[in-house]
This record gives sequence, C-alpha cells and structure tokens, in this order.
Amino acid sequence: MKIMVLGGDGFCGWPTSLHLSGKGHDVFIVDNLSRRNIENELGCGSLTPVAPVMARLSAWKECAGRTIQFANLDVALEYERLLDLIREYAPEAVVHFAEQRSAPYSMKSPRQKRYTVDNNLNGTNNLLCAISESGLDVHVVHLGTMGVYGYGTAGIKIPEGYLKVKMLDGAREVEARIMYPPRPGSIYHVTKCQDALLFQYYAENDLLRITDLHQGIVWGTNTPQTALDERLINRFDYDGDYGTVLNRFLMQAAIGHPLTVHGTGGQTRAFIHIRDTVRCIELAILNPPARKEGVKIINQMTETHRVRDLAAIVSGLSGAPVAYLENPRNEASENDLSVENKCLLELGLDPTTLKKGLMEEVIGIARKYAGRCDKSKIICTSLWRQGSVSARAQYMPGQKGKQKYA
Amino acid sequence: MKIMVLGGDGFCGWPTSLHLSGKGHDVFIVDNLSRRNIENELGCGSLTPVAPVMARLSAWKECAGRTIQFANLDVALEYERLLDLIREYAPEAVVHFAEQRSAPYSMKSPRQKRYTVDNNLNGTNNLLCAISESGLDVHVVHLGTMGVYGYGTAGIKIPEGYLKVKMLDGAREVEARIMYPPRPGSIYHVTKCQDALLFQYYAENDLLRITDLHQGIVWGTNTPQTALDERLINRFDYDGDYGTVLNRFLMQAAIGHPLTVHGTGGQTRAFIHIRDTVRCIELAILNPPARKEGVKIINQMTETHRVRDLAAIVSGLSGAPVAYLENPRNEASENDLSVENKCLLELGLDPTTLKKGLMEEVIGIARKYAGRCDKSKIICTSLWRQGSVSARAQYMPGQKGKQKYA
Repeated sequence: MKIMVLGGDGFCGWPTSLHLSGKGHDVFIVDNLSRRNIENELGCGSLTPVAPVMARLSAWKECAGRTIQFANLDVALEYERLLDLIREYAPEAVVHFAEQRSAPYSMKSPRQKRYTVDNNLNGTNNLLCAISESGLDVHVVHLGTMGVYGYGTAGIKIPEGYLKVKMLDGAREVEARIMYPPRPGSIYHVTKCQDALLFQYYAENDLLRITDLHQGIVWGTNTPQTALDERLINRFDYDGDYGTVLNRFLMQAAIGHPLTVHGTGGQTRAFIHIRDTVRCIELAILNPPARKEGVKIINQMTETHRVRDLAAIVSGLSGAPVAYLENPRNEASENDLSVENKCLLELGLDPTTLKKGLMEEVIGIARKYAGRCDKSKIICTSLWRQGSVSARAQYMPGQKGKQKYA
Repeated sequence: MKIMVLGGDGFCGWPTSLHLSGKGHDVFIVDNLSRRNIENELGCGSLTPVAPVMARLSAWKECAGRTIQFANLDVALEYERLLDLIREYAPEAVVHFAEQRSAPYSMKSPRQKRYTVDNNLNGTNNLLCAISESGLDVHVVHLGTMGVYGYGTAGIKIPEGYLKVKMLDGAREVEARIMYPPRPGSIYHVTKCQDALLFQYYAENDLLRITDLHQGIVWGTNTPQTALDERLINRFDYDGDYGTVLNRFLMQAAIGHPLTVHGTGGQTRAFIHIRDTVRCIELAILNPPARKEGVKIINQMTETHRVRDLAAIVSGLSGAPVAYLENPRNEASENDLSVENKCLLELGLDPTTLKKGLMEEVIGIARKYAGRCDKSKIICTSLWRQGSVSARAQYMPGQKGKQKYA
C-alpha cells in the first residue's frame, strides 16, 4: 500500500514509518523538521542521538533494503506543494502526525499558544482540503489524544465512536449520537478537539474517509526496527515539555534523579507502548471506514494507571525516591478514567502491557545515554495559568520526599 | 464604557459602533477592511454606497458630535499590535466581529476555505490570548451563529447556555451539562464551532468573561444612526455569497427580479433585524457573565420562518414571482427549528418583527440604489460540494416558476 506519513520524522512518526516500510508498504515521509527546530528553541535535545533525516533513511536502506521517500514540507503553510505531492504520489492512506504535540509547550507563552493553534488547525484543514481537491480516495489516519475528554469525564466509560445521549428538552427526552463532549485542558488539547470538528465536517460534506485514533500516553522508545542500528534510533524526550510521564520516570530512575510527580499523582491516565502505537496504526490503515460511515474513532491505549502508582512501580524497580512537586497544570488532583478499547483488540492487537523487562529496557537505554542529559531541563517550567504557581520551578537536588517550587 | 469593536467597519459592526457611540460609550473600531477587499475580489460591491472609513467617522463626528477612534489592524496576523492596543486603550468590553462571515464564500474554493479557517481561528485565539496576557478584565462579546447547530437539531428546542443531557453508559445514565452538540454545515460554520471550544477553554483556564451571541440571519440595512446621513449608510449585500436571504428577496423585489429560493425553500431559519442586533449587543455588554460563570450563550434572534414563506410574503408585497433553483448547499430540504430566546427579552429587548412597513423600507432603499446592482452577481455560484450541482448557476431571466441550473 502507498502510505504518506506527515510528521514521519517525529517520536511516533519515525517508528511508524519504519514499521510500515518493514511490512512491505511503500512509505513517503513528509516533515518540516519542526520538532528538531523546537529542540533548538528549547535548548534541549533528545536523550538518544537522533541522526539527520537523510542519514536515517540511508541507514534504513542499508539495514532493511527498503527505500523511504522524503519531502521537507510544511503542511500548515505549503498548500500547493502538498496538493501536488498528493496528486503525484496518490497515496491510499495518509497518516497525520504533523501537529505540535506537547501540551506543556502549548502553554509556555502566547507565542507557543499561537503557534500551536496556527500550525495544528491550518495543517489539518490543508490536508483535508487538499485530499478533497485532489478527488482521490485517500484514507486519513489521524493521531488524536485521550486528553480531549478532559480530566473529569462525567464518570462514564469513554466509548469508541460517537456517544449515545438523551437530550433533555423540558420533560421530553430525545436520543442522539454526538461527538463525545470535549473539555480540553490545554491549548494543545483544544486544537485536537477543533480537528475533530473538521473531521466530522469533511466526512459528511466531502465524504472523506477518516480514522481518528485517540491515543493514550506513549511510553518506550525503540521498536524492533529502530533498534536495528544506532542511526535508526528513536527520540527519547525527557524534558518537562516533551517528555511523557512514564518515560520521564524511567529516565530519572536511570540517572538517579528523584521521580517528579505533579500534585498528588492521583491523575489516572491511559498508556500505550510505542511498539503498539506502530502496530495500531497499521491496523487502522488496513481497516478504513466505509465512505459515508463518517469518522471512525478508536481509543488507542492498552491500560490505565494512576501516575503515583507508576512512580511507585519505577521506584520499586530502581530504588529512586519520589518527589511530589506542585502541579503546574490546571486540573483535578484525582480522577478515574474508564476507556473502551475493543476496536483494536478485535482487529488483532496483542497488547504490550507494563512489564518489568520492558521498563528495564527503557532504563537501560536512558542509562546508556545519560551523559547527554541536561538535568536543568527535567523540571516542568510551563505553567498552565499565569500566577497559578508562584515562581518558576526550582528543584532542590538531594532532598527527598515532598518538594516545593521555591 | 470603553468598548473596542473588532470588525467595526462591517455590516453588523458599523451600525453597532454608531449605536454604542450614540448611547454615550467610548468606541474604538479595529478593522483591516477585509470586507472591502473581498468586494474587490468578488467584483461586487454593496448596493448602497459605502463611504471610506475615515469619511464615515468624520460624518459621524459632524452629525452626532461624537468621536470614534479607528485602527487598521489585522487581528489574525498582528498579535503584538493588538496586545499593545488593548493595553493602551484598556477597554471594558471587546465586541468581536472580526471574522469572515459568509458561509457560501467559505465554500467557493480551497483558497476561501483555507482563508476562513486561518483568519477566524487565529483571530479569535489572538484576541483571547492577548486579553489573558494583558491581565485586564475585558469582557468579550462574540458574534456566533444559530447555524452551528446544523440543520437538523435532533428535534429539540435549542437552549441558551449549555445543554442538559443524560449520557448513556450501557444501562447507566449520567447527567451532564455540555456544549450543544455542533453539526456545522460549511467551513464558516466549522470555525464558529471551533471558536466555541476556545471560549470554553479560556473561560475555564484563564477566567476570561465571554458572551457568545448565537445570532439568526440579519435583515434590514439602516438603523436610526446610519440613516442620519448618506455617508453613514450601512452595507447592503445582495450577491449570492454575502447577501442574506430576506434582504436578497427584498432587493430582488425592488428591481423586478424573481425571488431566488434554493431547493424547496423548506428550511426554517431564525431572523433578527439589524436594529435589534445593535440593541442586543449593548444589552450583552451591559450584562456580562461573572468570572468563573463560564461562557454566557445567548440566542440572538426574534423569530423563525420557513424560507418559502418569506418568499411568499415578499412576493405578495411586491408582485415578484418566485423562482425555485437547485440548492447549492448540502442540507436537508425541510427542517423545523425551535429556539429559546428568553435571555435578551428578559434583559429588556422589545423585538422588531417582520412588519410590512419595515420590509417596504428595505425595498425603498434597494430601489433607490438599483442602478448600482450587477444582476450577474445575484445568483449563488458557490457550490457546497464539488460535483453536487452539475454546472455553474445560470439563471434564465424572464422565466417563472421552477428554474434549474443549465
């Protein structure tokens, strides 16, 4: 199958591109390398040494004998080039990772808020508009997030697909199927909800076929393909903006840094290993919705955990202490989360769950590259609300137990 | 009160600015004159002769003895200038009309689709972000649309504020208050739904005070203020993109053109006269929501009518025949609409309803400027879906009854 991967140089996009290529698909990566530029902006690189994109591609050719094409293109800005590329390459599926994907980054300052809205909305609209204009039948597989549901989810299991409700009109009740009511907790999450409106619209009006994968928090770093050669290695983000919670714990454990828990750690989150991410995406590509079926919404996660429970597990594995820091986010301190995830299991996913061996593998990788870590980047300094935390984060090394910002 | 009006040179913005200024408020108009530029793009001006903005402002000074300030500024592009202006002027309220407001225009081609998303989303986000960054307590009054509910509204009365639902989780029912589930029918309408997500978010996270006025279709052209002097006259759009349905009928009646009804005309729509629009906006400004109350949603309309019934009324008044044309929109041919509109009535609005005298006044204005009409611009040529109507609209003058595109 001919598959275009927008954002194919990123944390999920790169291993997905290799996985699809390894499975015999013809892969074309489109990426403007914005994540590498944001590294420069933040002054913090991946813990693992990420090779330049052309070096990655030649290493893949060398190791797997497969060619992946690449275009440096900004999906949010270069509409005509995108359209030409879709017409020329005529992909059967486009995987859309080309969005700014960090919630803390989207909250850093007005500049990042505005960039996230501008980039994510124009990117998604350009893609859908270009596919419609091309007249081709291209299945869009988008990476969304479980986070669009907000942190309180009215206590009901999050379904896959649209939600059944009874609307109340005085005493009258009318049944309807609606998009799950969103309650986004950051500008990043707002853009994902706004994407969902574009999907609903283009699926209805232009009969586009779209799968929206509402993904949990990804952990792990390598897949069998990225582990083949160091030049193929995947990113490992450990900083307060781009690092995801479990990977941050594992990396902190590796370098002997206390595990940084925000607030009480009572937030329940959905998780998925990067190995499953790439397999889920192939399953989604192979099972598109019918035209007029509307948007297919799938919850892409394999398990849920409370953040403090994860910290306790990693602390038990490694002996690292747990540090409770003030929560920079504007969220409930404790929440439950119940998620339906039948779709991918029915399509044949054999879930990779939280195993000691896999966690130790990540700790091992983190330990190998510990010398590349800038410890000053570990603490999260993006505040959700101006003034909600009194000062910038200032972690006191050497202290144990409950920590406070200075 | 110090009030900034974004988009204050437009069809609703201009009479609103004069009304507020006439009531003694201090008004500052911000506008990039994009509607005038779109006139050039479409090759179709207002039926009424709209004076240059500086001539309008000096005429107002002359007629009413009141000064309105003006800045030519693109809200979607010039964030820093907007922020500086908000800090310097320190408005108590900002009325936000600075969006591309035509659904047919938003559907003309990829260029207009992309412009509408880019302009409307970045404009709204820039405004909210700038207010948050300024730290000032500025009430935002936004002009939304009844159209976000889609054409089928699940048969229940559209409430003001959020909607009460029971969410169904298997056999369990959980009550919740959610945003009314949107089902936008054009790219323009998508952006209004996306705005609503930004409002929900900034109200919750940054405690911004926001009123979202879900407006019906505006008809009429002059208000007591714009009628004072020809240099103060309001726009009158009659073309297939920007003309609103009742004004188009009245103008067609004035020049002896058949009344163009799309499809069966069985669509029920909500209406409001421009005189009421300006009064409603002042009522909204004077009655802001409390901080933490969240977004105040008000339905700004006074009556609902089926389109073909309006055509019959205008035909009865004027003798103009009715022409049924193929519907370029992707919508149900017949729908009911039931809307709650208690909020503004309770705040003291005395509604202007569809009266013979007012309709004749509009016909009179249209007749006065009939010489300025370009008849080739009357028919709507923006198709909702590529291929859904076989060819461009081609109206045959002189024929009566049901007309088809060639």
